[in-house]
Amino acid sequence: MSSSNFPFSAETYANRRRQLMTEVKSGQILLISNNYSSINFKDNHFRYRQDSSFLYYIGINQPEVFAVLDCEKGTTTLYGDDVSMDMIIWTGNQPAIKELAAKSGIENILPLSNLSDLNIDQLKYLPTYRAEHELFLSSLGVKVIQAHKDLILAVIQQRNIKSAQEIELLDKAVGLTAQMHKKVIEGAKPGMTEYQLVSIANAFAWDNNCAFSFPPILTINGQTLHNHYYGNVLKEDSMVLFDGGIELESGYCGDMTRTFPAGKKLTGIQTDIYNIVHRSYEKAVELSKPGVYYRDVHLAVAKVMVEGLKSIGFMKGDTDEAVATGAHTLFFQHGLGHMLGLDVHDMENLGEVLVGYDESISKSKEFGLKSLRLGRKLKEGYVITIEPGIYIIPELIAKFESEKKHLEFVNYETVNKHLNAGGIRIEDDYLITMESNRRLGEPLTNDLESILSLKS
Amino acid sequence: MSSSNFPFSAETYANRRRQLMTEVKSGQILLISNNYSSINFKDNHFRYRQDSSFLYYIGINQPEVFAVLDCEKGTTTLYGDDVSMDMIIWTGNQPAIKELAAKSGIENILPLSNLSDLNIDQLKYLPTYRAEHELFLSSLGVKVIQAHKDLILAVIQQRNIKSAQEIELLDKAVGLTAQMHKKVIEGAKPGMTEYQLVSIANAFAWDNNCAFSFPPILTINGQTLHNHYYGNVLKEDSMVLFDGGIELESGYCGDMTRTFPAGKKLTGIQTDIYNIVHRSYEKAVELSKPGVYYRDVHLAVAKVMVEGLKSIGFMKGDTDEAVATGAHTLFFQHGLGHMLGLDVHDMENLGEVLVGYDESISKSKEFGLKSLRLGRKLKEGYVITIEPGIYIIPELIAKFESEKKHLEFVNYETVNKHLNAGGIRIEDDYLITMESNRRLGEPLTNDLESILSLKS
Repeated sequence: MSSSNFPFSAETYANRRRQLMTEVKSGQILLISNNYSSINFKDNHFRYRQDSSFLYYIGINQPEVFAVLDCEKGTTTLYGDDVSMDMIIWTGNQPAIKELAAKSGIENILPLSNLSDLNIDQLKYLPTYRAEHELFLSSLGVKVIQAHKDLILAVIQQRNIKSAQEIELLDKAVGLTAQMHKKVIEGAKPGMTEYQLVSIANAFAWDNNCAFSFPPILTINGQTLHNHYYGNVLKEDSMVLFDGGIELESGYCGDMTRTFPAGKKLTGIQTDIYNIVHRSYEKAVELSKPGVYYRDVHLAVAKVMVEGLKSIGFMKGDTDEAVATGAHTLFFQHGLGHMLGLDVHDMENLGEVLVGYDESISKSKEFGLKSLRLGRKLKEGYVITIEPGIYIIPELIAKFESEKKHLEFVNYETVNKHLNAGGIRIEDDYLITMESNRRLGEPLTNDLESILSLKS
Repeated sequence: MSSSNFPFSAETYANRRRQLMTEVKSGQILLISNNYSSINFKDNHFRYRQDSSFLYYIGINQPEVFAVLDCEKGTTTLYGDDVSMDMIIWTGNQPAIKELAAKSGIENILPLSNLSDLNIDQLKYLPTYRAEHELFLSSLGVKVIQAHKDLILAVIQQRNIKSAQEIELLDKAVGLTAQMHKKVIEGAKPGMTEYQLVSIANAFAWDNNCAFSFPPILTINGQTLHNHYYGNVLKEDSMVLFDGGIELESGYCGDMTRTFPAGKKLTGIQTDIYNIVHRSYEKAVELSKPGVYYRDVHLAVAKVMVEGLKSIGFMKGDTDEAVATGAHTLFFQHGLGHMLGLDVHDMENLGEVLVGYDESISKSKEFGLKSLRLGRKLKEGYVITIEPGIYIIPELIAKFESEKKHLEFVNYETVNKHLNAGGIRIEDDYLITMESNRRLGEPLTNDLESILSLKS
């Protein structure tokens, strides 16, 4: 967005800051804007992305501004410089710092040079995730960079609960994400290369003045979980997994996954697995509501998967025991979902565990559960993804089998007959409501029949 | 590109390194790979772009590898670790470091942990342009980061002269760039928003498995030189300036500019200015050949512009004097061109002045000439841009007039009648040949008649 284009009112930003200062109580909170990230030389840079907490509390979408919130005085000071007349020749007129501050509800403005007057012993700041942040803190005199946990927790508590206005923006981001997925499913044809499908998605994003919320996964090898290679050619019998999301100008994100054939149908085993994933998804939707631990939803979903995998001969034995010992993790290696908001993994920069867990539940270190980003009890106002998946990973199957793992629950002989079944995931975004949940955005169906009907 | 996909042979990389070590003579040259750049949290990153010198001398297109060239021994050591079995589950099989080293013609491999054994007093490195580079050098124990000028000069000397194989890649990059421009010109229609035109360009890039070589300028306000706002709607009488380039998987770049009407024609004054810019361009092409200072070409072009601007009443007086005093800079504020290669401003990270100037010619500090990136004597094998432009910048005109600047040469009264004429630039990419020059890529015409014929 243009740096003078604020999605919320000045009052909203001021209220958010007031709440944060009240919660943190003491010290001065320093909010650091992101810089342009250089590509191959200083002045050639990637698209600009402001820090999400800066967007949330300040709303100014440009680099070289910093905010200090004095918790004791309850005031906010914006540090920034206006552009020079010389710069205007090159960049055109830019909004004045004063104008930006007004739109953020900030009354105090100081030039950047005054940053050196800050008392670094009083400063509280969030964790750094870019090298530039570390250099900036060092330039202020901070010797050992150590984010402040009370500040982190206060921010998480506040940003985890989405306001009505935020939900409106998330509805929009997710709705556009669904439209993008529809275009990709409809556009996929045997003979195309994966990057040409990414191109369809990217053109849709650009046409709507949006960006990707993360580098999409678009692959005929969905079993490779973090695949960012786009060079494979789609064949008649290829199955495509597309995990991609739209990011609005305001920073709010969508995140969806669909799995579909390049041609007109899936193989028999893929159809069976798809339907198991879909039943798992529906179980997750059924169970996700306030007061329920998301880890319990994850484990209930795992049981539906085991039942399904038993029905096709991939697994055997007692379902509860299988899930208790983690046998399902051979097929479902990741977590059921995560928080979504201004970041696609919302606030992951503040610490995945602090966002997704709390004092009542700690993150497991076991394979499978250690990849569950969100375990805590759901609350009204949370926005989460629900994304079960089943993946036939030959390397992992060979490893588990050679280690004689889960022999009681896995029919390796049957599984080894279907090593090219691939990976299937279904992912949508949900708001936790007072009584249960609501799918965000204008929905795109996800049952196999509906998906196949898009391909006719 | 995939990290195991090298555009040159192992012998080529080895030869390039040998030449560099011979030139630098002493010490150990450290080549640092680029990391992934984080967007809003650590694991969410922009597209990967390797450092261009790393691509040139090593060719490995991935992070977390470092090369040390021992100038005295003439050997190269690659520092890197193979991915773990655990990682393969998430990312799929990755090429082994040994395989990557072989493709780069490197025999010695050491794990990353051995980097700490390096003798930092012996190390020579290139200038840093990302905060991560500074943190990496600090982690090695370097206290004051100071790049080594003998190394910089040796790299510039080598990379400034493009080999036949590099020229082939540049021909391809520029050819695709021309096709992209044609699509944008043909696609532009009144009623569209600027970002929808960027979308056409971006889809073309993705469809060809390429990226942009820099964030494109696509604007109906071409007089704002570094405009990256894409939110304006094209009107029937809008004039569009598009400055954009394709970057191949191998890293080689194109860079072109076209100016054209959103509708079917330009206004009278825009037509006049377009033709002046086109004559200036043709003068530059005529003069650019080995042995000629590019600054002299720039100044000769400025004279053609002054002649043209005199013919439409914008300027007056003696042409040579006008250029000598810099009166033309009211209309032509930037430089005629720059080097092009693995970077769109080739090697700008090594220092613009060291790339574009040498001991025989130093860069001017005067308005206009201070923006000329390339001033040195042209040589066979240079690849350059030729990009004259005329810009009616109301703020600059008001400033110069209020300062009573160039009253002898500028008819402010006439100019002030055309403050909305906008900005026009024509840019193409040329190889300096033994006797003169050759335009790179399959050309896209740039005279106004041909441009208008694309709009019918």
